[in-house]
Amino acid sequence: MSFELTCPVPITETDRILLGHGSGGRLTTRLIEETILPALDNPLLAPLEDAATIELGSHRIAMTTDSYVVTPLFFPGGDIGDLAVNGTINDLAVSGAEPLALSLSLILEEGFPIDDLRRILASIQRAALAAGVFVATGDTKVVDRGKADGLFVNTTGIGRVRPGVRLGTRCVEPGDAIVLSGPIGDHGITILARRLDLDFGPDLASDTAPLHEVAALVLAACPDTHAMRDPTRGGLAASLTEIASRRRVGLVVDEASVPVSETTRGAAEILGLDPFHVANEGKLVAFVPAASADDVVAALRTHPLGRCAARIGTVTDADPGLVTVRTALGSERLLDLPFAEILPRIC
Amino acid sequence: MSFELTCPVPITETDRILLGHGSGGRLTTRLIEETILPALDNPLLAPLEDAATIELGSHRIAMTTDSYVVTPLFFPGGDIGDLAVNGTINDLAVSGAEPLALSLSLILEEGFPIDDLRRILASIQRAALAAGVFVATGDTKVVDRGKADGLFVNTTGIGRVRPGVRLGTRCVEPGDAIVLSGPIGDHGITILARRLDLDFGPDLASDTAPLHEVAALVLAACPDTHAMRDPTRGGLAASLTEIASRRRVGLVVDEASVPVSETTRGAAEILGLDPFHVANEGKLVAFVPAASADDVVAALRTHPLGRCAARIGTVTDADPGLVTVRTALGSERLLDLPFAEILPRIC
Repeated sequence: MSFELTCPVPITETDRILLGHGSGGRLTTRLIEETILPALDNPLLAPLEDAATIELGSHRIAMTTDSYVVTPLFFPGGDIGDLAVNGTINDLAVSGAEPLALSLSLILEEGFPIDDLRRILASIQRAALAAGVFVATGDTKVVDRGKADGLFVNTTGIGRVRPGVRLGTRCVEPGDAIVLSGPIGDHGITILARRLDLDFGPDLASDTAPLHEVAALVLAACPDTHAMRDPTRGGLAASLTEIASRRRVGLVVDEASVPVSETTRGAAEILGLDPFHVANEGKLVAFVPAASADDVVAALRTHPLGRCAARIGTVTDADPGLVTVRTALGSERLLDLPFAEILPRIC
Repeated sequence: MSFELTCPVPITETDRILLGHGSGGRLTTRLIEETILPALDNPLLAPLEDAATIELGSHRIAMTTDSYVVTPLFFPGGDIGDLAVNGTINDLAVSGAEPLALSLSLILEEGFPIDDLRRILASIQRAALAAGVFVATGDTKVVDRGKADGLFVNTTGIGRVRPGVRLGTRCVEPGDAIVLSGPIGDHGITILARRLDLDFGPDLASDTAPLHEVAALVLAACPDTHAMRDPTRGGLAASLTEIASRRRVGLVVDEASVPVSETTRGAAEILGLDPFHVANEGKLVAFVPAASADDVVAALRTHPLGRCAARIGTVTDADPGLVTVRTALGSERLLDLPFAEILPRIC
């Protein structure tokens, strides 16, 4: 008799979805790599860039999707509407694509105020027009009270990849400079402060913004740019560790060169958070040949969203897979992904 | 003093989202036409077809999005996974497009069983491969327990519109024949029966299926097809009344010619539902010049999904905006959209 063998395996925590599976940390990576990718295995999905690339005749179409479950729906600097549009524009932008069109799908909870919906739709329209793109198609679903949380938004975007542009994790090379477009951590700290009802003053606001012009400036200054990312969930740490681990290179970051606003730095200290781990919604990190780094920084600084751009580090062939941060005091620390959630439902 | 003027208007039911806003009835139409369209007004969205058309060089890209909130997640004939993929494939198909790629975005509730997620992902992959398309890009979000209902799925699809194909509400003409690919009502009745724990026997199952081959057969038999729809939420009634009202034509449908399976007809009678109002997930209705109707029906009948295809009615210039059903007894009734939900969360 093999009764033991037919007994169901006891349900451990990892048999069920945890909040941390959605927070951009190691649990998210594991869910994607162990469960989702093997199930959906195909050559378009495999590169795991921020947008997929689909060939159509001589054109390359970039396609990206994101669902937004941020809470609260309204926050200093924006709301779920412009957050969703900007997030999708940014995934296209860092893929080297000019946006062509967006789709918008709403899941509404019964009882949601129609005035709030109107406010969010107006914000969606403003953000779309600011990025020069239309919501071309949409969908609306309603679920019963208590089966959602007010409003969830999905935006999917398609864009045309600029001819000649070749970007991707695989293009990153030892010797590349790492350039960041501006201060980190504003979005995540803003959401958390709002959720905890903490007031850090009027300077603290989400950085939600469209990066299509910023990305175009990078590509104009350095057509040979190797990769770009917009560090959202999991913060700059998630983008850097992902590149280091997938490309099997080392990254060395000079902490003093990474811009963080005074307000965000102070709030992060009080909240016990490392700005490297906190979500951004309007920042771009670029991997460019070292010889082009100064040109890229100079180009970024011509744009209001790139005023604080800086070269923050270098790609090396030492310590493949690791991101080393050189602190202002001269010591070194390894930047890792958090295991699970620091900040659930940040976007 | 004008105290009265500054008082907030009392919140009536219509200030808040109702379940019926998502059910494909008149409330859905009102939400879309009064709130969503004015806010997002633009030329790509305005035609309100099942997919938008975006020009890229000499190519036309079709784009469509849907979020799926069906309950239960698993049901006879399918699950939320293949339902989502087929639904998106079908919106592309009835727009005359060959599918190019899908995106997949998941909103998971904390505590959702990972085994159920695996089952649904496998179903998504099977359905995608059956339609010859890949999930090219994806996203995963997790919300706290009690803030969703297990799993919501968004699929967005892009396709290449076949050269020469011109489909749309505006192309429908008086004199056109209305052709239906098969029996109606199976999906909605299956979901409702499952939800009410009623057993109507093994023959009752969702008709979820991909219509790309069926749509291609229609277009091959009649390249001058004027419009196609896949009647989902709101049933065949919603598709027909939408065409009648937007195109300002009359539609006359011969009830006896509309296929309904014995099981579904019996179940619908017991449940007090009109199969015209019940959702389908694998049926196509085509508006074609009358001279091509027999060819289209014959072509459809060569395909397993079109075995019961039939010509069900005619477009007229009498009674613009109205859909008239001629019953088997020779009487006439007007087909209208239900005001609110008959069947919430059917897809």
